[in-house]
Amino acid sequence: MKKIIIAPDSFKGTLSAAAFCEIVGGVALRHFPGCEVIILPIADGGEGTVDCFLRCLPGERIKARAQNPLGEEIDSFYGFFGGMRPSHAEGATDNTQPFAVIEMAAAAGLPLIAGRENALAASTLGVGQLIMDAVERGAQKIIVGLGGSATTDGGCGMASACGVRFYDDGGNAFVPTGGTLRNIARIEHPGNAPLPPITAMCDIDNSMFGPSGAAHVFAPQKGATSAEVELLDGGLRHLAYIIKRDLGVDVSALRGAGAAGACGAGMAAFFSAELKPGIETVLDTAGFESHLSGADMVITGEGRFDSQSLGGKAVMGVAGRAMAKNVPVVVLAGGAEYIEEAYAQGVTAVFSINRLPEDFVTAKNKAAKNLFETADNIFRLLK
Amino acid sequence: MKKIIIAPDSFKGTLSAAAFCEIVGGVALRHFPGCEVIILPIADGGEGTVDCFLRCLPGERIKARAQNPLGEEIDSFYGFFGGMRPSHAEGATDNTQPFAVIEMAAAAGLPLIAGRENALAASTLGVGQLIMDAVERGAQKIIVGLGGSATTDGGCGMASACGVRFYDDGGNAFVPTGGTLRNIARIEHPGNAPLPPITAMCDIDNSMFGPSGAAHVFAPQKGATSAEVELLDGGLRHLAYIIKRDLGVDVSALRGAGAAGACGAGMAAFFSAELKPGIETVLDTAGFESHLSGADMVITGEGRFDSQSLGGKAVMGVAGRAMAKNVPVVVLAGGAEYIEEAYAQGVTAVFSINRLPEDFVTAKNKAAKNLFETADNIFRLLK
Repeated sequence: MKKIIIAPDSFKGTLSAAAFCEIVGGVALRHFPGCEVIILPIADGGEGTVDCFLRCLPGERIKARAQNPLGEEIDSFYGFFGGMRPSHAEGATDNTQPFAVIEMAAAAGLPLIAGRENALAASTLGVGQLIMDAVERGAQKIIVGLGGSATTDGGCGMASACGVRFYDDGGNAFVPTGGTLRNIARIEHPGNAPLPPITAMCDIDNSMFGPSGAAHVFAPQKGATSAEVELLDGGLRHLAYIIKRDLGVDVSALRGAGAAGACGAGMAAFFSAELKPGIETVLDTAGFESHLSGADMVITGEGRFDSQSLGGKAVMGVAGRAMAKNVPVVVLAGGAEYIEEAYAQGVTAVFSINRLPEDFVTAKNKAAKNLFETADNIFRLLK
Repeated sequence: MKKIIIAPDSFKGTLSAAAFCEIVGGVALRHFPGCEVIILPIADGGEGTVDCFLRCLPGERIKARAQNPLGEEIDSFYGFFGGMRPSHAEGATDNTQPFAVIEMAAAAGLPLIAGRENALAASTLGVGQLIMDAVERGAQKIIVGLGGSATTDGGCGMASACGVRFYDDGGNAFVPTGGTLRNIARIEHPGNAPLPPITAMCDIDNSMFGPSGAAHVFAPQKGATSAEVELLDGGLRHLAYIIKRDLGVDVSALRGAGAAGACGAGMAAFFSAELKPGIETVLDTAGFESHLSGADMVITGEGRFDSQSLGGKAVMGVAGRAMAKNVPVVVLAGGAEYIEEAYAQGVTAVFSINRLPEDFVTAKNKAAKNLFETADNIFRLLK
């Protein structure tokens, strides 16, 4: 074994993708000293996305002031990569074009206002401030991870910080929040000239409004009452109408537009951003295809490997790309169902990490230990 | 993969060793068509021992009449091997010297008198009848599996059927049972001339009498009250004394003498039998060493692989012998603890078959499915 790529999703709520990489990478080196181990923890755009990128690409965690969802100044951060210093991460290629990775949760995240959730008032303005900070720092490309937000403002706060103007029917400029979206009478867009291309990481398919839209599906967990959900949903519907009329962009049926309080819609409408699954973003950015050359094996994983995994993005995304280069793929999962089609789509073998017959509540706390032991035995078998 | 040996212990109460062989053997052939698959399900001497041998060696299941533990005539059976017809089992070598395998449970088993357990009266006489039947059929060697018995007679019933005479202090010959062991005043042994060498399969270490003896440890599950346990224990102690005095054999400290109602003691005293672990008996009889030549892998397994497995006989017995011939050993277990020393003693890798985080009660019913899926993925990985 000369070269192993470790590219797992997180085990939601149990084990981070980064922890998976650390454990399995450590075991690999223990059994195959001198083996090149490339780690690519898969981020989904939510909390931890910047750290995932920092683990697999040379970059820096930049501190920046920004407003939290309630407009209070806080210390926030983002990741800045490339063009700054030589590569240091083993196996990672330095991207010559500087780019930034921002997780919107760092400025608009629900935990930032824990106990003070306010779905009508929460704003993504701080996200726009982070984008502008990265632009000033020289980012030629910006990746924004959508997820974990406290907001339902359709990204209007973010857009405001980047120069987009919203006016009410009295002609007064204002920064709309979820509760005031209905007051938007007109949008004035400065053009994207000052902004570099933006990619939005987005792993959900929800639409902007309607029964499976941002308000109905996600606003309740952001503190919205059912009356507020209706108000927010109506506001988003109105925003879609104004966006189409003033900017000529139809986001009403866009998949993923409902992500992060319809920030997905705002990304597409205000920044012409591409909504792209986390897995694709990470693999493309980290140069997964080039890493595959000469790799003996890819190890990936997720909390539960089941029939939904086939439609899922992370594990099967890794498998498909690896299969194209004839690299075997081993899946390590907290729970592993037998999915025949997965093998045809590039998965070589699937192992559950459970070492004892124990229910999830017990097994959850042993995930790290179980993963270590399972990976250890797989490498022993392959030696 | 050209040649695989499958030699598992049973998953007690969950999956028989034979079922393990069938499942894993089937998966092996699915992924490696044309592969030579040798199955050696490990018997422990208890119920199913004869069938285990019949699965890995060419032989016949012989029907024979015998007395059950309460003296009633029943249809019983044993296995007869070698010297009868050409080899038919794939990979099995025909033993030229005919031999018999008897499981004592077939004539002295607890299930034969379910609901009518009688620890004082139960007799092993039927076991002796099976032995004599096999002798008449020409067996040059006899293997008797100890285990699952309803008796605590020290094997006196069995010995009686084979010509050993027990006298009370009035000089009357009688067939002692657990309750009448104390009445033995003298033993007359005809010599072993009519009997071929006998091996007793025995996987427990209990002594003949005392706190860890046959009566105290096993008689309660055979229906004995605590007063009866004391009576039985005293009887066995007395028997040991008479055996030593009349036959010159000291079984009082023999490991395994307490097996199957102290039938272990009787085996050693009356037949000079060797008490041998099931694993050793099966592997020796089935020619495991010769099968190892050219084998790519041995797959073994047991219900739970833990620190006790190191002192255990089945899995580590297989591993030790395979290591001596440099054949990798994969352990598939219902529960797998991380036992570092096991790797130094011949185990290559250990996998738990659990595919989902489920407790034992749930997992138990899925053992066959889980074993299939785990073996399937291991073979996929090795392809």
